[in-house]
Amino acid sequence: MAEKSNQEGHPTKAFGWASRDHSGVLSPFNFSRRATGEKDVAFKVLFCGVCHSDLHMIKNEWGISTYPVVPGHEIVGQVTEVGSKVEKFKVGDKVGVGYMIGSCHSCDSCHNDLENYCPEVILTSGGKYHDGTTTYGGFSDIMVADEHYAVRIPENLPLDSSAPLLCAGITVYSPLRFYGLDKPGMHVGVVGLGGLGHVAVKFAKAMGVKVTVISTSLEKKEEALEHLGAHSFLVSRDPDQMQAAAGTMDGIIDTVSAAHPLFPLIGLLKTQGKLVLVGAPVKPLELPVFPLIMGRKIVGGSSIGGMKETQEMIDFAAENNITADVEVIPMDYVNTAFERLSKADVRYRFVIDVGNTLKI
Amino acid sequence: MAEKSNQEGHPTKAFGWASRDHSGVLSPFNFSRRATGEKDVAFKVLFCGVCHSDLHMIKNEWGISTYPVVPGHEIVGQVTEVGSKVEKFKVGDKVGVGYMIGSCHSCDSCHNDLENYCPEVILTSGGKYHDGTTTYGGFSDIMVADEHYAVRIPENLPLDSSAPLLCAGITVYSPLRFYGLDKPGMHVGVVGLGGLGHVAVKFAKAMGVKVTVISTSLEKKEEALEHLGAHSFLVSRDPDQMQAAAGTMDGIIDTVSAAHPLFPLIGLLKTQGKLVLVGAPVKPLELPVFPLIMGRKIVGGSSIGGMKETQEMIDFAAENNITADVEVIPMDYVNTAFERLSKADVRYRFVIDVGNTLKI
Repeated sequence: MAEKSNQEGHPTKAFGWASRDHSGVLSPFNFSRRATGEKDVAFKVLFCGVCHSDLHMIKNEWGISTYPVVPGHEIVGQVTEVGSKVEKFKVGDKVGVGYMIGSCHSCDSCHNDLENYCPEVILTSGGKYHDGTTTYGGFSDIMVADEHYAVRIPENLPLDSSAPLLCAGITVYSPLRFYGLDKPGMHVGVVGLGGLGHVAVKFAKAMGVKVTVISTSLEKKEEALEHLGAHSFLVSRDPDQMQAAAGTMDGIIDTVSAAHPLFPLIGLLKTQGKLVLVGAPVKPLELPVFPLIMGRKIVGGSSIGGMKETQEMIDFAAENNITADVEVIPMDYVNTAFERLSKADVRYRFVIDVGNTLKI
Repeated sequence: MAEKSNQEGHPTKAFGWASRDHSGVLSPFNFSRRATGEKDVAFKVLFCGVCHSDLHMIKNEWGISTYPVVPGHEIVGQVTEVGSKVEKFKVGDKVGVGYMIGSCHSCDSCHNDLENYCPEVILTSGGKYHDGTTTYGGFSDIMVADEHYAVRIPENLPLDSSAPLLCAGITVYSPLRFYGLDKPGMHVGVVGLGGLGHVAVKFAKAMGVKVTVISTSLEKKEEALEHLGAHSFLVSRDPDQMQAAAGTMDGIIDTVSAAHPLFPLIGLLKTQGKLVLVGAPVKPLELPVFPLIMGRKIVGGSSIGGMKETQEMIDFAAENNITADVEVIPMDYVNTAFERLSKADVRYRFVIDVGNTLKI
C-alpha cells in the first residue's frame, strides 16, 4: 500500500479494507494498531455490521473523513490479549465495540455514563485518538480498544446478528428508555423500517409497548406486521389513516435521515407526546410550532448510548432473544453491499463475516 | 347596538368594548351574560390585561374569530354573587380568570389537572361555551365563570399588576416547572423581553435560577440587567457572544412569536438542554436536527397551565412579590394601546382599569 499512515509508531500489524477517496470504493489495506495497553483488550474481529453512516464516511459526505477510511463500528470478536489492568475481560471472551472508543472521562457527560455526549468523544472509525492517530474501524482483522468501550456479548446471542445492536440497537434502545417510551401498554410509532427501525420494533415490543410502523408506502406492511410482529401499520401519505390515528401515540422513534415532514407525525402524538429523531437529515426540517405548544409536545434527539447503557441493551437483547435481521456477506462483497445499501436494498443489515472471509 | 347576539337567553345585562370586524377597532358594546349558576361566581371586573393574542383575535388574524369579539383574558375582579354549590369563593373575594373558562372534565388532560390541554377547552374570549353561546372576555363590566376556572388572588398582590400573571405569568411559569428548569443553580435563557419574557425573568430568578436574557439588540440590556435583575444579557446577533455562551444553559424559554432561527439557541444549550417555545409563529420554523441528536436536546412547547397550577403560580407570585410591570390605561385608550402593542411599544403590559374607567 502506498498511503502514508500516521500509525507508524504502532507495532501490531493489521489488515483490512479501506476507502481511499470520495469514490468510496473499498480495497485491501495494510496498517498497524497500537500495542495492547494495560487497560486495553485486543480481539480478533469476527463480524462487523455495515451501517449507513459508514456509507457517508467512505464517501466523505459529511466532509470530516480522513483517508484512508477503514469503516465499521458494529464489531464483535473474540479476545486474544488483555492488558495488565483489564478487569472485565479475559482471553477468549466474546466482545463488542460500537461507535465510540474514547472520551474525555472528566466532563459531566462522562461522569454520568453518557460518554456518547462527551464533546471529545472519539469515533471508532475516522476519529482522532488520544495519541493523535486516526482510528480504523472493524473492517479489519484485529481491534485494540480500551476495555471501557467494549461490551460483553452474552453467550446466547449469535455473533453475526448481534453485531448491529452495537450501533443500530443502542441508537433506538436508548431513546426508548430515556424518553420514557418503555412502559407496558404505551403506544409507540416507528418511522422508517430499515436497520434502525426494525430493531426499534423488536425492542419496543419486548418492553411491552404497542408498536405501529409508519411508512410512506404499503410495501412494508406485511413485513412489519407478520414478520416483525408490529401491532399496526400506517401509511404516512394516507391522510385518512393518519387522521384516524391522530392523538394516539405516546411517542415516535423517527429513524429517517432524508428530509420529511414532521407535522403529520406530531399530529399522531397524544398530549405531551414525544417525537424522537435518531436519523440526521443534513438540512433543517420544518417544525410547526403551534401543535407543539397546544399539546405540550416535544421533538428531541438521541445519539447511540453510553457504555453502561450499551451493556444493558445487549443484556436486554439476550434476555429477550433480540437480534438484527441480517444478510451475512463475505468481505469482498462489501462494495456491492454499499451500493445496495444506498438503494435501501437490504433486509435489514449487512454483516460482514470478517473472521472467515477477510483474506490477507 | 345592532349586532345580533346569541346570548339572548342570558338575563344579566353586561357592557363592554368589542371589535366588530377585522379592522380590530373596539367600541362600546351591550350584551348579556348567563345567570349565575350553582357552581358559578359572578364578579365585577376591576382590571384586565391586554395580551398579544387579543390583538390577533380582534383582527381575526388566526381566522377563528366570531364578531363581535370582546377581548380580555387576564381578568381580576371582586365577587358579587356565588352559586349555591360554590365552595372556593364568597362575595367580596378577589378573583382572577385567565385564558380558559371551561373544558370537558372527562379526558385524561382534565383528569390530570391539565384542562389547558383538553381538546374541548373553552377560551375566555371568542370561544364557544357549553350552551352554544360565544364567550365574551374581560373588557367588560362583569364576568360569570364556573368557580373551577377562577383563582383566588392573594391579599398582598396588587390587582392591576397581577392581572397579567393570569396569562403571561402562567405561560412562562408552567414550562419552567414542567421542563424542570426550576432548580436553584440552573442557568436558563429567556428569549424576548416582552409581556411574557419579563415575567419569565422574575419567576426564574425567584426559583433560584441564573437568568440570561437573549435579545436581538443591545437596546434592552440595561433594562434587563438593572431593572429586571437578569444575571446576564446576550445579543443573539453577535456570533462572538453566542459562541462564548455555547453549551451553558439548562434550558431556554423562547417567547418570540415572530419567525426566528432556532439553531443559535440550540447551540446555547448544554447536553440534554431544553428549548421551550411559548410564542407561536404562524409559519414553521427551521429545525436543525444534527445538534438535537448530538446533544440529546429537545424542543418543546407549552401553553398556559392547568387551573391547579395557575393557583400555585399566583400563590408563588404572592410569596415572592412577583407582579408584571404594567402601564395602567383607561378603557377608552384601548385602541391606541393595541396600536402601540403591535409596535411592541409598552413596558411590558397594558392593563385596563376597567373598574374605574368603563363608562356605560
